[in-house]
Amino acid sequence: MKHPSNILLGHGSGGRLSHDLISNLFVKYFHNPFLELQGDASIFPVNKGKLAFTTDSFVVDPLFFPGGDIGRLAVAGTVNDLAVSGAKPLYLSAGFIIEEGLPFNILEKIVKNMAEEAKNAGVFIVTGDTKVINKGKCDKLFINTAGIGEMICDADHISSGCEIEVGDKIIINGSIGDHGMAVMSARNQLHFQSDIESDCACLNGIIEIALQNPKEVHFMRDATRGGLGTVMAELCEKKPFGINLFEDKIPVKETVRGICELLGFDPLYVANEGKVVMVVSSAVAEAMVEKIKQHPLGMNAAIIGEITDQHKERTWLKTSIGGTRIVDMLAGEQLPRIC
Amino acid sequence: MKHPSNILLGHGSGGRLSHDLISNLFVKYFHNPFLELQGDASIFPVNKGKLAFTTDSFVVDPLFFPGGDIGRLAVAGTVNDLAVSGAKPLYLSAGFIIEEGLPFNILEKIVKNMAEEAKNAGVFIVTGDTKVINKGKCDKLFINTAGIGEMICDADHISSGCEIEVGDKIIINGSIGDHGMAVMSARNQLHFQSDIESDCACLNGIIEIALQNPKEVHFMRDATRGGLGTVMAELCEKKPFGINLFEDKIPVKETVRGICELLGFDPLYVANEGKVVMVVSSAVAEAMVEKIKQHPLGMNAAIIGEITDQHKERTWLKTSIGGTRIVDMLAGEQLPRIC
Repeated sequence: MKHPSNILLGHGSGGRLSHDLISNLFVKYFHNPFLELQGDASIFPVNKGKLAFTTDSFVVDPLFFPGGDIGRLAVAGTVNDLAVSGAKPLYLSAGFIIEEGLPFNILEKIVKNMAEEAKNAGVFIVTGDTKVINKGKCDKLFINTAGIGEMICDADHISSGCEIEVGDKIIINGSIGDHGMAVMSARNQLHFQSDIESDCACLNGIIEIALQNPKEVHFMRDATRGGLGTVMAELCEKKPFGINLFEDKIPVKETVRGICELLGFDPLYVANEGKVVMVVSSAVAEAMVEKIKQHPLGMNAAIIGEITDQHKERTWLKTSIGGTRIVDMLAGEQLPRIC
Repeated sequence: MKHPSNILLGHGSGGRLSHDLISNLFVKYFHNPFLELQGDASIFPVNKGKLAFTTDSFVVDPLFFPGGDIGRLAVAGTVNDLAVSGAKPLYLSAGFIIEEGLPFNILEKIVKNMAEEAKNAGVFIVTGDTKVINKGKCDKLFINTAGIGEMICDADHISSGCEIEVGDKIIINGSIGDHGMAVMSARNQLHFQSDIESDCACLNGIIEIALQNPKEVHFMRDATRGGLGTVMAELCEKKPFGINLFEDKIPVKETVRGICELLGFDPLYVANEGKVVMVVSSAVAEAMVEKIKQHPLGMNAAIIGEITDQHKERTWLKTSIGGTRIVDMLAGEQLPRIC
C-alpha cells in the first residue's frame, strides 16, 4: 500500500493508518527478533541479576543539525544513560509524538538513522508508540526513548558515586560544547556558518573499556544538558568532598570557544551528547586515559580535575590565568531545546 | 526553596531549576526505594525469567476529564499494556514534555494522581525526565510512560494469540465507549453536559483473576484507541479464523449510546481506557465471567462473541435487528488526542 506523503491525524488513530505506518516504517527499519508487532509489549528473557532502566524525551530544534539529528540523539542519549550507570544497554522503546503534516520522508530519514545508531550500539528497539498531534499544537516531532540494560558485575557503586575518594582523578573523553554549538549554528535565526559538528554518539563502547576494571571507576555521568559544569556541581553537592577543575586541561575546540565567546556562552555549561565524565582512582587514571585514547571517541581524552577535601561541596575552576572561580549549577536556561 | 508558580524554560535546563523540580515535585510524590534521584538510571534486581517491556505517549486534550486525567491515563495505559501481555507490571518510567507557562499546581495535581494510580496498581515510578518547550510549540503537557513487567508463568502465548481455537469465547469486562465520550464531553467546543465518566483504570487486578488459569486464556488486549472494533479486526487479520460479535451482548451505557448517535460515532470504534477483551476457551468462559463480575471493574462483564471458522480473517457483527455487518479497522481518525 502506498503511504501518504505527509503524516495525517489518522496515523495516530490506532486504526488502519497506524497499522500501515508500523508495518511500512517502524518494522521495516527496526526489525529484530524482539520487536513486538501489533502486540502491546515486547517480551524477552533475562538472567538473574540487576537491571538499569532509564528514559529521556528528545525535543531538539531543528530536527537535523551538523553531526546528528533527533533520531540519533534519541538512541544515543538513552544508551549513554544506561552505560554511565554501569549497565550494558540492551533494549530500547521509542515513543513518537508527531505534528500532523510532517513529511513522511523526514520521519523515514530519522527512523532510518535511529535504526543505524541502535545497530552500531548493539541495542534493539523492541517496542514503540505513535501519537499524532493536530497542526500547530506540537513542533514537528518529539521522541521519547526508554532503555533497559543489564548491570555489569561490580559496577553497582558507579551511579551513586558512593566510593569516590579524595585524590581521585576526573577524566573526560574529549572536547566540550560541540553539541550545543552545532545545534545553535543550525538554527535559522543565527546567520553564521561553522564547521562545528555535534559529538552525538553512543558511548557504551568506550565505557566498556573503562569498565574492564569496574572497581577503579568510582563515578560516571554523560555531560548533556547543563554541561560539564552542572555535572560537577551536582556531584559534590552535600558531599564530604569538593572538586578542582583545571581550565587549561579541559579540551575545547577553537571554533567552539570562538562561537561561545561571540554569543556569550560558557563552554562549561554547553550541552554535550558524546562526552562521559569519569571519576577514577588516581592509581589507574593515567593508564586509563591512554586506553581511552585508543578508541575513536576518546582520542582527546584528558585528566581535567581531581577530588579534594579542601573545599567540600564546591567545585572550583582553576583558570588558565591563575585565578579560581566557583562552578555552580546552571541557573536558568541557556539553550532551550538543545536535546 | 519556593518554586515559581509557572513552569519556566529553565525547569528543563538540566541545571538548578530542573534539580529543584525533581526534588520538590517528582521525588515528593513518587518516592520509592528504586527511584533514582539525580542519577541516570534506576537499578533494581530481577529473577531469571522473561520480562515484558512497553511504551505509550499520552497527549489527551483536555488534561482533565470526567473520571480521569492525563496522569492517571499515563499510568493505567502502560500498566494495562503489560498486564494484557501476561505480565505482572512492576516498574514505570515517566517522561514529561511541558509547555512553558503551565501552572505548577496543574502539574502537581497530575503528578499526585499518577502517584496515587501507581500505588493502587502496585507499581513503582522509578525513573523520569522533564523537557520544557517554548510557549506555543507544544500543547500544555505530553507524558510518556514506559513499563517493565515480569511475565507470569505459562502466559507467553497470550500476547500473540497463537493458541486461539475455533469455538473460543470473547469476553469484555464492561461497557464500551465511556472514555472517548467522557473526553468529548469535556472538550470546550462541545456545549453538552453528561454524567459519562471515563473508565480509565489499571486492569492488572482484574487480569490477575483471569490469569489464575493462564492456559485457558488465549489472548488479551485492552481496547483503547480504535476501540473494540479495531482490536477484533486486527486479531483475525491474516488468521485462519474469524470472529462473530453479538451486538446485543456488547455492553454500552445508554448515555454513551445517546451521545454517540448525536455526534455520529460508532461505539465499536470509540476508545476505552479500562476495558480488556479476552479470548478464552469455551469450557471456562461462563465461569470466568462470573469470577470477573466479582471484581469492581468487571461487574458488567459479558461474553460478547466467539471465534469461528465460517468467515476467516473477518469480524462479523450480528446486529440486534438480525443483520450482519463486517467490522473493519478504523480507517481514518475518529477522535484525535483521545489518550
